[in-house]
Amino acid sequence: MKTGVVKIRVIYADTDAMGIVYHTNYVRWFEIGRTELMREAGVVYGEMEKEGFFLPLTELACHYLYPARYDEIVLVETRIGYFRRASVKFCYEIWDENRERLLVEGSTLHAFLNREGKIVRAPARVGEIFQAMLDGRPGG
Amino acid sequence: MKTGVVKIRVIYADTDAMGIVYHTNYVRWFEIGRTELMREAGVVYGEMEKEGFFLPLTELACHYLYPARYDEIVLVETRIGYFRRASVKFCYEIWDENRERLLVEGSTLHAFLNREGKIVRAPARVGEIFQAMLDGRPGG
Amino acid sequence: MKTGVVKIRVIYADTDAMGIVYHTNYVRWFEIGRTELMREAGVVYGEMEKEGFFLPLTELACHYLYPARYDEIVLVETRIGYFRRASVKFCYEIWDENRERLLVEGSTLHAFLNREGKIVRAPARVGEIFQAMLDGRPGG
Amino acid sequence: MKTGVVKIRVIYADTDAMGIVYHTNYVRWFEIGRTELMREAGVVYGEMEKEGFFLPLTELACHYLYPARYDEIVLVETRIGYFRRASVKFCYEIWDENRERLLVEGSTLHAFLNREGKIVRAPARVGEIFQAMLDGRPGG
Repeated sequence: MKTGVVKIRVIYADTDAMGIVYHTNYVRWFEIGRTELMREAGVVYGEMEKEGFFLPLTELACHYLYPARYDEIVLVETRIGYFRRASVKFCYEIWDENRERLLVEGSTLHAFLNREGKIVRAPARVGEIFQAMLDGRPGG
Repeated sequence: MKTGVVKIRVIYADTDAMGIVYHTNYVRWFEIGRTELMREAGVVYGEMEKEGFFLPLTELACHYLYPARYDEIVLVETRIGYFRRASVKFCYEIWDENRERLLVEGSTLHAFLNREGKIVRAPARVGEIFQAMLDGRPGG
Repeated sequence: MKTGVVKIRVIYADTDAMGIVYHTNYVRWFEIGRTELMREAGVVYGEMEKEGFFLPLTELACHYLYPARYDEIVLVETRIGYFRRASVKFCYEIWDENRERLLVEGSTLHAFLNREGKIVRAPARVGEIFQAMLDGRPGG
Repeated sequence: MKTGVVKIRVIYADTDAMGIVYHTNYVRWFEIGRTELMREAGVVYGEMEKEGFFLPLTELACHYLYPARYDEIVLVETRIGYFRRASVKFCYEIWDENRERLLVEGSTLHAFLNREGKIVRAPARVGEIFQAMLDGRPGG
């Protein structure tokens, strides 16, 4: 199964007065993770939108195991959890730089919508790529 | 059961290029919801920290049903889901101003930690208040 | 001259690992300040947009004198600095709850744009209201 | 004069309902710009803090010329504007990916503080490096 990895350096803006990364910022990094995973596979989300398909979040789940701190590097690993006709689930793991500790683990579920906000089937090309990624086939 | 309600006006900073509130901002509003619920019941989180107790998030779950948009008012309703010796769960509903539509529904789980980051039993006074809130007794 | 005042409670999301409010969050509060100042005077920004007028920032200036901290209440005071045919400047002061200390002082300059992004003259009604606010006349 | 360049991809979280990057996010990118400029020159801000020196913002200025949009890449260019005994100014330019358009231009002024929040002289090593960067000397 294809997994994408993105490296992120924690900045002050990400932290809070507890001295750790504020919990919503990991979820913001999830967005970077799935966008880059899709881009590497040939699905540029911005272009999909121009073709009239949107992928808003419908569910979010997140477990916080260890905090990240200022100036640390974290690794955001993203893979597709499942793909249905009209929805796709992404799974995320955020690790410390040396991959010694899983910091955060989560998932997001997304629906395919058209411009009118109706649920629609995923574009055929996107569906094929997502399925190939799940199967671990080349092209995915 | 005691429920707290906070009114929030959506600003530009909360929105994204889809024209709706970016998904992490509802979770930021959860923080306002639980802080105010606790404050009304007599638990000021900032003071609890000065006494050496911290309540970081360990789990987050969120369902996005309908989006909020720029300049709309939303109502964040918060209640305690459960209370254990060393953890507490808050449940949230975010409604439109007229309470016609549930927009977002979610929960956060928190552990009681001491300054060294060890899991500890909740302070006795806090535990009593949380329990009273759950029971719907006065004082909660 | 008309001045609007908004009360804001600092939440964890606003703070950083230095234990103080991260500097961009004061600027986010500026948005709340000017939106509410305008609203009180009868100019709802969201409606102005529906009529085809936009007010993006073109300049921002900010002096940080004292930091705000978690759970403190701050007062955001906003007034119009000047109003021209196609631009408006807002001035802000952020004070501690007891008005003993000026924490942050700043300004934002905004251009009136139409849907095509061209600079245009302010809508007549808005111009009159802004001028009345500057003059300290009723209706402003 | 030494200039650092950082590449940033705009994500949804950075944008607002006008379809452009919300104005505070450029300022957040300034932080990435100056941190990386300093790091390349051998000044790791996080380590300076451990030695008891802090560099909070005291002033911010920002001109917004053209907006960046979702999924675009921007280049954040940072250089030192001036260096005094107890303060340092950083200047920033944010360009589009092809360096055809200056999008945002700004500066931040910072004071050197000790743990007690008193203004202090910059650490000697840091001062030498900053001066060398200004002079365009190797080591800067």
